[in-house]
Amino acid sequence: MSAATSQRFIRSYGFDEIALVPSEITLDPEIVDISTTVAGIKLEIPIIGSAMDSVVSPKSAALMGKYGAAGVLNLEGVQTRYEEPEAILKEIASVSKSDYVTLMQRLYLEPVKEDLIVKRIKEIKASGAPVMVSATPVRATKYNEIAADSGADVFLVQSTVVSTQHRSANGAEPLDLAALCKSSKIPVMVGNSATKSVTMALLETGVQAVFVGIGPGAACTTRGVLGIGVPMASSVADAVEARDEFKLATGRYVPVIADGGIVNSGDICKALACGADAVMIGSPLARSEEAPGLGFHWGMATPNAVLPRGARVEVGTVASMKTILLGPSDSDDGSKNFAGAIRTCMATVGAENIQALHHTQVILAPSLRTEGKVYQQIQGLGMYK
Amino acid sequence: MSAATSQRFIRSYGFDEIALVPSEITLDPEIVDISTTVAGIKLEIPIIGSAMDSVVSPKSAALMGKYGAAGVLNLEGVQTRYEEPEAILKEIASVSKSDYVTLMQRLYLEPVKEDLIVKRIKEIKASGAPVMVSATPVRATKYNEIAADSGADVFLVQSTVVSTQHRSANGAEPLDLAALCKSSKIPVMVGNSATKSVTMALLETGVQAVFVGIGPGAACTTRGVLGIGVPMASSVADAVEARDEFKLATGRYVPVIADGGIVNSGDICKALACGADAVMIGSPLARSEEAPGLGFHWGMATPNAVLPRGARVEVGTVASMKTILLGPSDSDDGSKNFAGAIRTCMATVGAENIQALHHTQVILAPSLRTEGKVYQQIQGLGMYK
Amino acid sequence: MSAATSQRFIRSYGFDEIALVPSEITLDPEIVDISTTVAGIKLEIPIIGSAMDSVVSPKSAALMGKYGAAGVLNLEGVQTRYEEPEAILKEIASVSKSDYVTLMQRLYLEPVKEDLIVKRIKEIKASGAPVMVSATPVRATKYNEIAADSGADVFLVQSTVVSTQHRSANGAEPLDLAALCKSSKIPVMVGNSATKSVTMALLETGVQAVFVGIGPGAACTTRGVLGIGVPMASSVADAVEARDEFKLATGRYVPVIADGGIVNSGDICKALACGADAVMIGSPLARSEEAPGLGFHWGMATPNAVLPRGARVEVGTVASMKTILLGPSDSDDGSKNFAGAIRTCMATVGAENIQALHHTQVILAPSLRTEGKVYQQIQGLGMYK
Amino acid sequence: MSAATSQRFIRSYGFDEIALVPSEITLDPEIVDISTTVAGIKLEIPIIGSAMDSVVSPKSAALMGKYGAAGVLNLEGVQTRYEEPEAILKEIASVSKSDYVTLMQRLYLEPVKEDLIVKRIKEIKASGAPVMVSATPVRATKYNEIAADSGADVFLVQSTVVSTQHRSANGAEPLDLAALCKSSKIPVMVGNSATKSVTMALLETGVQAVFVGIGPGAACTTRGVLGIGVPMASSVADAVEARDEFKLATGRYVPVIADGGIVNSGDICKALACGADAVMIGSPLARSEEAPGLGFHWGMATPNAVLPRGARVEVGTVASMKTILLGPSDSDDGSKNFAGAIRTCMATVGAENIQALHHTQVILAPSLRTEGKVYQQIQGLGMYK
Repeated sequence: MSAATSQRFIRSYGFDEIALVPSEITLDPEIVDISTTVAGIKLEIPIIGSAMDSVVSPKSAALMGKYGAAGVLNLEGVQTRYEEPEAILKEIASVSKSDYVTLMQRLYLEPVKEDLIVKRIKEIKASGAPVMVSATPVRATKYNEIAADSGADVFLVQSTVVSTQHRSANGAEPLDLAALCKSSKIPVMVGNSATKSVTMALLETGVQAVFVGIGPGAACTTRGVLGIGVPMASSVADAVEARDEFKLATGRYVPVIADGGIVNSGDICKALACGADAVMIGSPLARSEEAPGLGFHWGMATPNAVLPRGARVEVGTVASMKTILLGPSDSDDGSKNFAGAIRTCMATVGAENIQALHHTQVILAPSLRTEGKVYQQIQGLGMYK
Repeated sequence: MSAATSQRFIRSYGFDEIALVPSEITLDPEIVDISTTVAGIKLEIPIIGSAMDSVVSPKSAALMGKYGAAGVLNLEGVQTRYEEPEAILKEIASVSKSDYVTLMQRLYLEPVKEDLIVKRIKEIKASGAPVMVSATPVRATKYNEIAADSGADVFLVQSTVVSTQHRSANGAEPLDLAALCKSSKIPVMVGNSATKSVTMALLETGVQAVFVGIGPGAACTTRGVLGIGVPMASSVADAVEARDEFKLATGRYVPVIADGGIVNSGDICKALACGADAVMIGSPLARSEEAPGLGFHWGMATPNAVLPRGARVEVGTVASMKTILLGPSDSDDGSKNFAGAIRTCMATVGAENIQALHHTQVILAPSLRTEGKVYQQIQGLGMYK
Repeated sequence: MSAATSQRFIRSYGFDEIALVPSEITLDPEIVDISTTVAGIKLEIPIIGSAMDSVVSPKSAALMGKYGAAGVLNLEGVQTRYEEPEAILKEIASVSKSDYVTLMQRLYLEPVKEDLIVKRIKEIKASGAPVMVSATPVRATKYNEIAADSGADVFLVQSTVVSTQHRSANGAEPLDLAALCKSSKIPVMVGNSATKSVTMALLETGVQAVFVGIGPGAACTTRGVLGIGVPMASSVADAVEARDEFKLATGRYVPVIADGGIVNSGDICKALACGADAVMIGSPLARSEEAPGLGFHWGMATPNAVLPRGARVEVGTVASMKTILLGPSDSDDGSKNFAGAIRTCMATVGAENIQALHHTQVILAPSLRTEGKVYQQIQGLGMYK
Repeated sequence: MSAATSQRFIRSYGFDEIALVPSEITLDPEIVDISTTVAGIKLEIPIIGSAMDSVVSPKSAALMGKYGAAGVLNLEGVQTRYEEPEAILKEIASVSKSDYVTLMQRLYLEPVKEDLIVKRIKEIKASGAPVMVSATPVRATKYNEIAADSGADVFLVQSTVVSTQHRSANGAEPLDLAALCKSSKIPVMVGNSATKSVTMALLETGVQAVFVGIGPGAACTTRGVLGIGVPMASSVADAVEARDEFKLATGRYVPVIADGGIVNSGDICKALACGADAVMIGSPLARSEEAPGLGFHWGMATPNAVLPRGARVEVGTVASMKTILLGPSDSDDGSKNFAGAIRTCMATVGAENIQALHHTQVILAPSLRTEGKVYQQIQGLGMYK
């Protein structure tokens, strides 16, 4: 390959390929501050539940808020299409694998109802939790106004891949993100970006948070279907560079949220060390007893009528939302007590707050044997009797 | 190793090691143009069915043409050796694994009949589909004339590995590709090449398309038997450099077709982003209901009497040819709606036509977790209950 | 990524990724000296048993000493919490997987008794073996005095990750390692470090050995839970650089002990070749007939009440402690005759003592086929019938 | 790590990580010359059977010679310890896995008999095949004379790792290789080396061939037990550099034989392309109907009384020696027709003899999908139904 071609092929890294390195300093976990601020909302735990039907319902959003995190309600999911979403969710959880995609395509033909948007927002609001809601770019302007008027605190414009220059087929005006940021009565966040340049372009529109990550989630098959995807560690590190340069140039610090590809508490710590201000997680919360997915987790691109992406994964139920977020844990696989894990990680690497964690040394460490869990999984190969 | 030796060991990449990166621009899929032109034939979909007995028959070639693609009929396969190839194909699909190679070696002892070449070409012609046919170098001159006279639109000279300087054992004149290009009444395409230098040498003979890729296909065991093979992403990127330099030097743009190693729609998108003008695919189309392979797929080097290469793989049947090419899809694994996937990919990375897609950022991303499908496959290792 | 960011992502290597290269010299094994000196204690075999309940009891420590190695007794494990630890160990070995973590959390609520510390130390002392004991930083000062007065030879201050600057929550004075080194009547060793800078900082406190390695052990899930870990080959090589620079600057040679991630005798040889003066091993000794773990092995972070880390692994019992350490071996998997393996390795690469072994050429060789054992494990994939 | 340390960690490559790249030239297989000359013996096929009890007996050596290859008889194996080795070989093939090492340790206590050395050599000689024999350095001088007097054509001094400077325990003179080369009545070959510097040192003693490769064979567990091993592609490329520099300096061309890690015909082609003049193979020939191993293959380090290395692998029986060496093949996995595969490979990359093959482009291509066979093996993961 020529030098020019080689330059197009840049190596990038996933969370599974990196690890954090301690420094000369350690701290008592008690003096570590793991809180973060996203779009003006202070979160005691730097965790946001994904805007997915299997993760966030008004009920689970309330619980996330109660324990110091927050959940984003998808304004175009089952909660706003159906008056009684529980029955629908039960149907999704019980359908056979072969009928799953067809069911999803049918269920999402039901239109979104504006009165249900209002109702769901009020339900979360009543719990005292932060009210974060999301919509796709095409409906963002309309739903933003309804959401703000109904009491939402923050509005997330989200699509698999977001851009600042969208050209539409019918000559319709694409979403003007800068205009939305200006007109919106509540802070606007946007995602998902995967690179430094797109993040920079998004920051310049005036958004108050950028979600980073495309293709790496447990319920996402974007890479197999479209060939598109960026491993998370590189994606976050790149977006963080944009954030920091934007801060230098404008004085404004706009948080970056790592979204996707996070499996256990170790991954959360890695995302924060790569520079994220918070993480958005789906499958780890879909495993809570109170998750609307009833032990299943699925991607929001599945209902696409002609090109479904995103599988349904049976994630099971491992503990209550409280135990997953705050502990105590009774297992050793990083599936519970996320707050405790973040705190212990930060204490161990000597970072007293998340800003300090951003400066922790990160290494590339793909060696299997260094990841305890994987080590045990390969036992079946005969390493121990 | 010395510097000289190290230089012989150049790193190369397969489709499974790369991914595409979005830019600041996105498009509505409706305004994306996924058509391509190969050897003067405009294809609405940049897909060509492999010249393999399990993929292209007159009937399946007609369907590929109907839906905007094209299929290449192998003039030295069962279709031109047997008056009634269906019975032969059924025999191949039903033989036991242990008797497979011997059966293939026997079946291909039956000579090719020139009247069947004429007949098969007329069958495809009658359907209105593009008539693309292929022969090996040794028979190329003879069959080229028959094919052109029978109504073929394009002629592909194809062997596992093609060269411009062939030395034969008995002093017989090797195929003079330049002479064939000049004498042929229809455009001549050639393959397979794996490098920039061979592609450049082929371009200089006057061919109208170069097929790129050796060894990586699902039904190909060339690397295990001969040690030969080049991963596709590097192979395509190298050939594309030759194409672009040739265009600069001569003003002629000769398309490069990525051939081999393509498993799902994501791989098609990756091949095009690496610079290919179209892809040739075998196993993904062998899975169509109308494929002559009846749920099986095999390589054309298998019948070799003394050194068989290429296995028979049971690929199964997943959908109609129309659904595989045009959708709609009811699954999320990249096996259906190739046109929709290419269109959505291009819309997502902001490429309005295939020329634009050639400039998309490509990253090296071998991390397992970024590929949704693989992620799910490793679940069995215990990541979820 | 920017250059600055790239610099944070340094590639590091595990033992499974490296191999040793012979030179122009070979030796008869008989003339190889495999002894080492750690904190003033000469060990005929450069092996130290991990301070883990499944590995070191007074009885197994006596045996390790008898055969030329040494074991470190954890002063905060079951041996010093329970008068009759055998019953407790039997309970741990027989509990179901699902109840394991909860049992451990309960068992370790029992307080450590100072009279049992005295008793256990005297038991080891009576055997004539070196008496090495360990405590966590928070209890180090107190237990150090008891241990020294009871006859311990060396004192190890050990936590998952150790630092020289610890800030505690309640304003309590953190452990002053330099002061402890000065006041202690017996040599003080410390661990675990993973980097050059931390090792250097520890060396400057006056410790007489540094243990290196975090996260890579068979019973350790630190990376999955906290995201923290450094592959061993790099970790050891880095610490060794600190040791050698410290020697140049001060004239004092302080040994580095590789601790964690060692599976077979080949790994021991690799650790020593990377520069370690000795290795600390857990699971390979937990497989001895006399190990207190009764065929099981577990990490000491498991009992953590709110964030357990470290799994219980069934390692089985393969031979007597004598056979594992001194041979003869009747198997070919590197699980027995560690002394013989080290001696044969050193003879093969021409190193007459461990200092010479430190200069052996190390290569990066992740290729699966070069590791015989792995080769056989992948046979199941069909390479042989 | 410091620069100095990094330099100790050089990346090296195995055959599974490389592939060969065609050039602008192709040839008819008929005009390719695959012969080679090793220590004065012309071999029609560049293949030598390993000096292992499961591979070479007088009978199988005769067959190898008949078909253009050669086999090396181990003068310290069962053939020279037992008058009737067939019964012994049957016992090895039928013993249970758990009793295997102990049996081997017992069987090799039986001393080597000099009259059997003479007898076995005469048996091979009578067949007209090249008589190649091997002994370990310690017995080399003595057996060399017996072998030469009995009619052996070439003598191989072989140990796992060979050096030019051996220091023995009892002050005994180590083997003086240069003296042996001078005194021997027949050409002396030596192995195994793994690096350029050792190869150069061996060449300077006057040997007539150097065998290259340590640790990578199917029946070898040296890396797991001793941590020692060098992946073959790098090992061969390095030794080849020594050979070529030695040729430049002295005018003498001394062949390098790649020994170990060769699984299929593709690997043979890769070894030759890396610069080897011939390959020594064990397991692929142990799979012949006439192999003494009766479907099993084992390493010669297994009988070591205190530190056995080398496992017994059930390789099965796939075809006659003639079919494996000369074909025709009826399978597509590279297990048969080695001569045909080498010839076809060379024709495909345009190399008319082995010297020309040494200049073929080699690439690093670890991508799984490029190796057809592996591709099929991962089907079980669900890629195809």
